[in-house]
Amino acid sequence: MTATLADLATPVLLLDGFKVARNLARMRAHLAPHGVVLRPHMKTAKSVAVMRDLVGGPETPITVSTLKEAEVYASAGVKDITYAVGISPDKLDRVAAIRKSGCDLSVILDSVAAAQAVATKSRETGDAIPALIELDADGHRAGLQSSRGEELVAIGRALVDGGAALKGVLVHAGESYAEPGEAAIVLAAEGERATAIGAAAKLRAAGLPCPTVSVGSTPTATFGKDFSGITEVRAGVFMFFDLVMQGLGVCGLDDIAAGVLATVIGHQPEKGWTLVDAGWMAMSRDRGTSALPVDQGYGVVCDPLGHPYPDQIVIKASQEHGIIAARPGSNAKPLDLPLGAKVLILPNHACATAAQYDSYVMTDARRPGEVLGTAARFRGW
Amino acid sequence: MTATLADLATPVLLLDGFKVARNLARMRAHLAPHGVVLRPHMKTAKSVAVMRDLVGGPETPITVSTLKEAEVYASAGVKDITYAVGISPDKLDRVAAIRKSGCDLSVILDSVAAAQAVATKSRETGDAIPALIELDADGHRAGLQSSRGEELVAIGRALVDGGAALKGVLVHAGESYAEPGEAAIVLAAEGERATAIGAAAKLRAAGLPCPTVSVGSTPTATFGKDFSGITEVRAGVFMFFDLVMQGLGVCGLDDIAAGVLATVIGHQPEKGWTLVDAGWMAMSRDRGTSALPVDQGYGVVCDPLGHPYPDQIVIKASQEHGIIAARPGSNAKPLDLPLGAKVLILPNHACATAAQYDSYVMTDARRPGEVLGTAARFRGW
Repeated sequence: MTATLADLATPVLLLDGFKVARNLARMRAHLAPHGVVLRPHMKTAKSVAVMRDLVGGPETPITVSTLKEAEVYASAGVKDITYAVGISPDKLDRVAAIRKSGCDLSVILDSVAAAQAVATKSRETGDAIPALIELDADGHRAGLQSSRGEELVAIGRALVDGGAALKGVLVHAGESYAEPGEAAIVLAAEGERATAIGAAAKLRAAGLPCPTVSVGSTPTATFGKDFSGITEVRAGVFMFFDLVMQGLGVCGLDDIAAGVLATVIGHQPEKGWTLVDAGWMAMSRDRGTSALPVDQGYGVVCDPLGHPYPDQIVIKASQEHGIIAARPGSNAKPLDLPLGAKVLILPNHACATAAQYDSYVMTDARRPGEVLGTAARFRGW
Repeated sequence: MTATLADLATPVLLLDGFKVARNLARMRAHLAPHGVVLRPHMKTAKSVAVMRDLVGGPETPITVSTLKEAEVYASAGVKDITYAVGISPDKLDRVAAIRKSGCDLSVILDSVAAAQAVATKSRETGDAIPALIELDADGHRAGLQSSRGEELVAIGRALVDGGAALKGVLVHAGESYAEPGEAAIVLAAEGERATAIGAAAKLRAAGLPCPTVSVGSTPTATFGKDFSGITEVRAGVFMFFDLVMQGLGVCGLDDIAAGVLATVIGHQPEKGWTLVDAGWMAMSRDRGTSALPVDQGYGVVCDPLGHPYPDQIVIKASQEHGIIAARPGSNAKPLDLPLGAKVLILPNHACATAAQYDSYVMTDARRPGEVLGTAARFRGW
């Protein structure tokens, strides 16, 4: 007998494998004509099963956000990983161990001090650790400022002369999550590309190697028009998509592959509230849409098969209570669902919501209501 | 050789067992003269080790927020548990199984429909499931409105006549987290108590039993003056405390027992930013202090032993990046910490931050810098 959504204990995280595959195929089709490698960011999925069954398997080069991810994916056979958060010296023993296990793990850095630490560890281990120099395109967080050309070259020299390997440059247009619409995102993509190719040119002019020129974010990867001079694109959340991406215009609601199935646990009839067992522990505390034109509260409420109830969102969340009501300003009628009924809630931010779970319950849009199995997640650092 | 904080891979969650014990002793001393039972809420800790070693062991009656918590703590020998989130019919098989295992698990509800479902399951299993009727004191989320006296009695009758057990009433003054200061919280406590004893009186006047009159939240438990008519107090986050509680005036910074140890991974010198490897995945997305007089960003930055750096907070967080800078409006100088240095970050909300980890690294304020071991956490539903 096929298991169905009605059999599930809630709250539970559903992942539509058909939609994940469709989102990946669309991104690959978009990038293919540009001759760039897609290096998917596996920080959203954090799942060996998703890597193996949906993202292309261990031969696909990937990006990760923690050494734990690098360790788990390397153990599962992935051979080419970029750890795309600035490396600190205390983490280099783990980097060396992962590389020794047969995975070509690269690190990123934005200072001479970090380059020297990587070079020292490379000499100690007799293994030239590959490093990309991180550049800042938009003031978002980390990365060397483009104005610091001398420091860029000094970092490159510290790596090369010190015994590490200079793999290239890396940029992340993190501010592309801030402004909705294709036009703004195309501009962000241009800034990201310009920063990356500018730094690559400076390194090469100084006689240093720069084989990899890496850019990426889901918005800029989706809307980028010009990838000349770029060798690879990193993006992650596009596999699952979410309400932030939908709010930016990067995807439609129907592209969102992950959602939380919840059960009605009560009502406040005077207020038009329906209470469900998905609070912020189930949805995460992420309120990413609060800064976008349409604030989706803690999530958009759908029937269990993913059809949205017009203007019904989770307006408030306690640890284990979600409060569903009409969007403020809407005159939509309250939901009329009895105690025990189930709803699917689309999340603000797939990375944050998925992190609240140890596994995905796999579904497929072509087989509505069926449960196809589970896929384990991992977490930690 | 004693392990020290310097040996730890970061980010990692530290829990000071001495402070947890002190916070518990203080709460028990405050409540003892009032003759009420403390039923600690174990949703913050989610740890059998913390229950066993710090909260009083399996003989202590506890509160939980998920059936998973009930199952884990019951398996560890806890004999008296209240599941303090409204029960839905689909969860009653698990409730019955936990009770059958020898744990006296109670549920809560606020509708005749839920009472009928509990009564039906009680008859099916031949075991009268104890239920408390949840009342709403302040419009926070769930619970029957006090004005609905007839429905209150109808719920009680549905339980008693249907074969379940009416254990009493339960109120949570959730809005006590909204307004800082003892005076406001004393008022919230009075409202909570009045709601609870009013409902108890109505049930008794209708000839129904009401042995338990349960109130609780960390703020109202801390500042409550009058517990007459109350039989038990629930509270949870007081064990760990956090910046929200400190911002409400409920504790001092030095009472906060949980913090995230992080490592410096970079700098943006022009901006006075220090980047660490604790982003929102390590801190949670909880921004609970954003609505309080002092917004603490994603956390207050301390040296590894917990001494705060004046006015240094995590102003911004990506998934794995935290950005430390002076509090907006402050003229504090930027932190001067090199790559690889460690800091301790106090969280906005202990429940949310702890949920990002699978274990605690145990410390003790009387043994600064030492690591005393680890304590496992669990999660899920």
